[in-house]
Amino acid sequence: MAYRVAHEQAARRTATGPDRERHTTMTTPQDRLTHIDEAGAARMVDVSGKDVTARTARASGRVLVSPQVVELLRGEGMPKGDALATARIAGIMGAKRTPDLIPLCHPLSVAGVKVDLSVADDAVEIRATVKTTDRTGVEMEALTAVSVAALTVIDMVKAVDKGAVITDVRVEEKTGGKSGDWSRS
Amino acid sequence: MAYRVAHEQAARRTATGPDRERHTTMTTPQDRLTHIDEAGAARMVDVSGKDVTARTARASGRVLVSPQVVELLRGEGMPKGDALATARIAGIMGAKRTPDLIPLCHPLSVAGVKVDLSVADDAVEIRATVKTTDRTGVEMEALTAVSVAALTVIDMVKAVDKGAVITDVRVEEKTGGKSGDWSRS
Amino acid sequence: MAYRVAHEQAARRTATGPDRERHTTMTTPQDRLTHIDEAGAARMVDVSGKDVTARTARASGRVLVSPQVVELLRGEGMPKGDALATARIAGIMGAKRTPDLIPLCHPLSVAGVKVDLSVADDAVEIRATVKTTDRTGVEMEALTAVSVAALTVIDMVKAVDKGAVITDVRVEEKTGGKSGDWSRS
Amino acid sequence: MAYRVAHEQAARRTATGPDRERHTTMTTPQDRLTHIDEAGAARMVDVSGKDVTARTARASGRVLVSPQVVELLRGEGMPKGDALATARIAGIMGAKRTPDLIPLCHPLSVAGVKVDLSVADDAVEIRATVKTTDRTGVEMEALTAVSVAALTVIDMVKAVDKGAVITDVRVEEKTGGKSGDWSRS
Amino acid sequence: MAYRVAHEQAARRTATGPDRERHTTMTTPQDRLTHIDEAGAARMVDVSGKDVTARTARASGRVLVSPQVVELLRGEGMPKGDALATARIAGIMGAKRTPDLIPLCHPLSVAGVKVDLSVADDAVEIRATVKTTDRTGVEMEALTAVSVAALTVIDMVKAVDKGAVITDVRVEEKTGGKSGDWSRS
Amino acid sequence: MAYRVAHEQAARRTATGPDRERHTTMTTPQDRLTHIDEAGAARMVDVSGKDVTARTARASGRVLVSPQVVELLRGEGMPKGDALATARIAGIMGAKRTPDLIPLCHPLSVAGVKVDLSVADDAVEIRATVKTTDRTGVEMEALTAVSVAALTVIDMVKAVDKGAVITDVRVEEKTGGKSGDWSRS
Repeated sequence: MAYRVAHEQAARRTATGPDRERHTTMTTPQDRLTHIDEAGAARMVDVSGKDVTARTARASGRVLVSPQVVELLRGEGMPKGDALATARIAGIMGAKRTPDLIPLCHPLSVAGVKVDLSVADDAVEIRATVKTTDRTGVEMEALTAVSVAALTVIDMVKAVDKGAVITDVRVEEKTGGKSGDWSRS
Repeated sequence: MAYRVAHEQAARRTATGPDRERHTTMTTPQDRLTHIDEAGAARMVDVSGKDVTARTARASGRVLVSPQVVELLRGEGMPKGDALATARIAGIMGAKRTPDLIPLCHPLSVAGVKVDLSVADDAVEIRATVKTTDRTGVEMEALTAVSVAALTVIDMVKAVDKGAVITDVRVEEKTGGKSGDWSRS
Repeated sequence: MAYRVAHEQAARRTATGPDRERHTTMTTPQDRLTHIDEAGAARMVDVSGKDVTARTARASGRVLVSPQVVELLRGEGMPKGDALATARIAGIMGAKRTPDLIPLCHPLSVAGVKVDLSVADDAVEIRATVKTTDRTGVEMEALTAVSVAALTVIDMVKAVDKGAVITDVRVEEKTGGKSGDWSRS
Repeated sequence: MAYRVAHEQAARRTATGPDRERHTTMTTPQDRLTHIDEAGAARMVDVSGKDVTARTARASGRVLVSPQVVELLRGEGMPKGDALATARIAGIMGAKRTPDLIPLCHPLSVAGVKVDLSVADDAVEIRATVKTTDRTGVEMEALTAVSVAALTVIDMVKAVDKGAVITDVRVEEKTGGKSGDWSRS
Repeated sequence: MAYRVAHEQAARRTATGPDRERHTTMTTPQDRLTHIDEAGAARMVDVSGKDVTARTARASGRVLVSPQVVELLRGEGMPKGDALATARIAGIMGAKRTPDLIPLCHPLSVAGVKVDLSVADDAVEIRATVKTTDRTGVEMEALTAVSVAALTVIDMVKAVDKGAVITDVRVEEKTGGKSGDWSRS
Repeated sequence: MAYRVAHEQAARRTATGPDRERHTTMTTPQDRLTHIDEAGAARMVDVSGKDVTARTARASGRVLVSPQVVELLRGEGMPKGDALATARIAGIMGAKRTPDLIPLCHPLSVAGVKVDLSVADDAVEIRATVKTTDRTGVEMEALTAVSVAALTVIDMVKAVDKGAVITDVRVEEKTGGKSGDWSRS
């Protein structure tokens, strides 16, 4: 894998080794793009035949920020006020918006959403957990919650740090559904 | 900066050296969170006193995917059909959705949006350019376009690769407005 | 309760006496803010463990308007045309918009909505009834329907009466769910 | 005005005396429903001939709540955490949603929004200020911000107090536009 | 039926003969407007008593375009690129938007959507199929998918052909629900 | 034009003769799909260099319905109540939704919208007029208003007439902008 630069290796390292072992009981991955039919046309996959069952997904991400931003968000001397709450609310609302944003995503009854933000020395770390009892999983809802929370952090801090970067947005774990449980490590 | 792990250094390396020189004519960055007032309350900053001028922003991002996905998206033997087009359309529509998603963002007249996707050996690379003639800049619109396109790529490929990662979503360049032009390198 | 001014007492009078008797079979009210976790963070409460059952809610509200507006809306000489219909349609659509507007509200399958408007001597009176068969109640949907209908009435009449006031928006009754039935009087 | 009950009189008292004096330089109010044409059909009034000028509006409202809720929101022993921030964010986002909710409202470039919440002995008091530079005023945006913030407060506290009431939602002041400034007192 | 002009007869011809035979097992059609109550007020019909069952609907439509547009869309010499994909994606997303657009439509869990476009000698032909497992049918979702795809085609070609026309948008077939199956021919 | 069936000829007949004369001062039509770039990728055309000027568009359409529906909508014995008002409101709101629905459409400040419905012997006839002062025209807004009103009519009557058809949705006239005025006849 000579073509992978440092940060890509770092990002994948926590998931698995090169042959991608997973702690999972999932069925074999698909070998075609399931959202495209034989003629190449996009379609919303028909899930009407699937069972309504409990499904969860947890995703995470990071917003790399300058030391000055870290200081402001930690409230050293200056109240951070609504800064993290705004990102949290935006992330929760973003989960609900997923079928509006992602063309082939199904409308789902989102049953619960949690978005956690914490300030590390060089980044804001974000975790989102989504639950549903429906016919399809909520990985996209969890990823969208993280992404919208991250975008909101950037909006809050961009006057102080124009160089902020959203990175490592990924699914950490999912449970339920026919493909079973999957975990990154 | 001992705490910065490999991929964070890589992400920031292309922007500047450690003291964050920028090729820019911008005014000095703010030293407080502009979206929070003195009492800590979030508010939508009042831009009614700003001039209506031409402003642009360009952002980029990457979705790290498995070799199998790269092969499918490059269409070796199998038509990729609408796969990249779907992500592009979602990204363009995402730019328009920015004030709906990001709580303190202003509604803007987005005058033009371009979203480019290309398939590298290990990732889908995304670039978005947004233009407006309005009272405030379009960095958030460009970042949102990249993020929604990236989420759509994940939605398209997740049945084949559950481990895909969105990374390096960031503003590359902006022009116009009182703070002037800014470029990452 | 010396601090309660006249109109507050009037608003609560129709519900109960000072010690808040309710005609209800509900379980004891909660003693903490259920939408906030132990760390103070907002989250969408997880309802995936609740049963899918029939639930209804009825809410009401009033828009205080000038005698001139009452006359116009009653159509003395002048057709009121679409005026009340517009508010009714907006209220029905508002019920469907509830999870988009209220951050911690769950998406629900709204099964039925009715919005009634009538013109009293000094106000437009609004009543909304919402039904669902889902895991959580529809009180917020009924309140949102009333509020959006009321805002629409103000929009229709504000050129004639700048001083209109929305008042007494409240849940009158709810049925179904584990906390059982509740009624204001 | 024998038909006005106590709380209605109280609501209007702060605005003016019975003959509705206003501290204003406005032109005479309209004598017809401007959103309805001669045939009774609703339409979005044509504002293309109006000037683009600075306009503001300030609105207020109250959510009557139980003493137990007041105590929780004031954080006596228990962190109120995100409770008020959630209502504030929802109110700001609600202002942007106004043309989606109110059928005959025009899309506007909202230039600034502030939403303040404070906890009195028996109510949560809400104030919203909206600014724009556009062809029409922002009274509906300010009222919608207050209403959505109020609905969010109810959502946050309804498990503790089913009898909460939204009341006195009204425009306090507006500036700009051809009809000039208007103030409730 | 002397008042029916040529194209109206053509549109209905494919459905049935003049007395409107249908190949169906449906119950007798209603004789009143079901979305209006006895007082003339619109309401969202209460479906909470209906069973959750599998339901489908298929709709079609045509966009009449000039020969020059046909040539561009068929890609003779010039890549049509994303043109049809954009209309397809917009149609799929339009199906999900149906309850937002059509006031009295119920939110539904859309389980699957397919939108097909093909280029005939004088028109773009559009077909949409929608599936759900819910309490009410998806005819409106299928019609909305066709309409939004058709509008998008017009948006794509209007600089070349200002005279394009959307025509013959109609339900072809529906299955499921108490009224049973219905087919146009 | 042997391939054009009866109703297509009828649809185009009212516009012009076979060689498509137009009463117009427009510049020559484009010879490529302007929304697709040289690589075939869709993009939102950059209009930031265009002038902000007054622009209007008028569109029309028809919903073919059974005689029974015509009778119900004309109110012979039975109040039609909100039926047409609901379609009108939905059409006006649909105009505002255009950039949300049509991927490459620009957000615009819609300055005015009128939607007229009338009941002919065999159809509901719909006309929409939209005005703006902005950088691009409002043909798509007018077409979307007609389409959403038409879909709403179908929703209102489908329990009585499953065979309703939307037809002849088209731009009748536009004014303003660099390409000047254009009229179908």
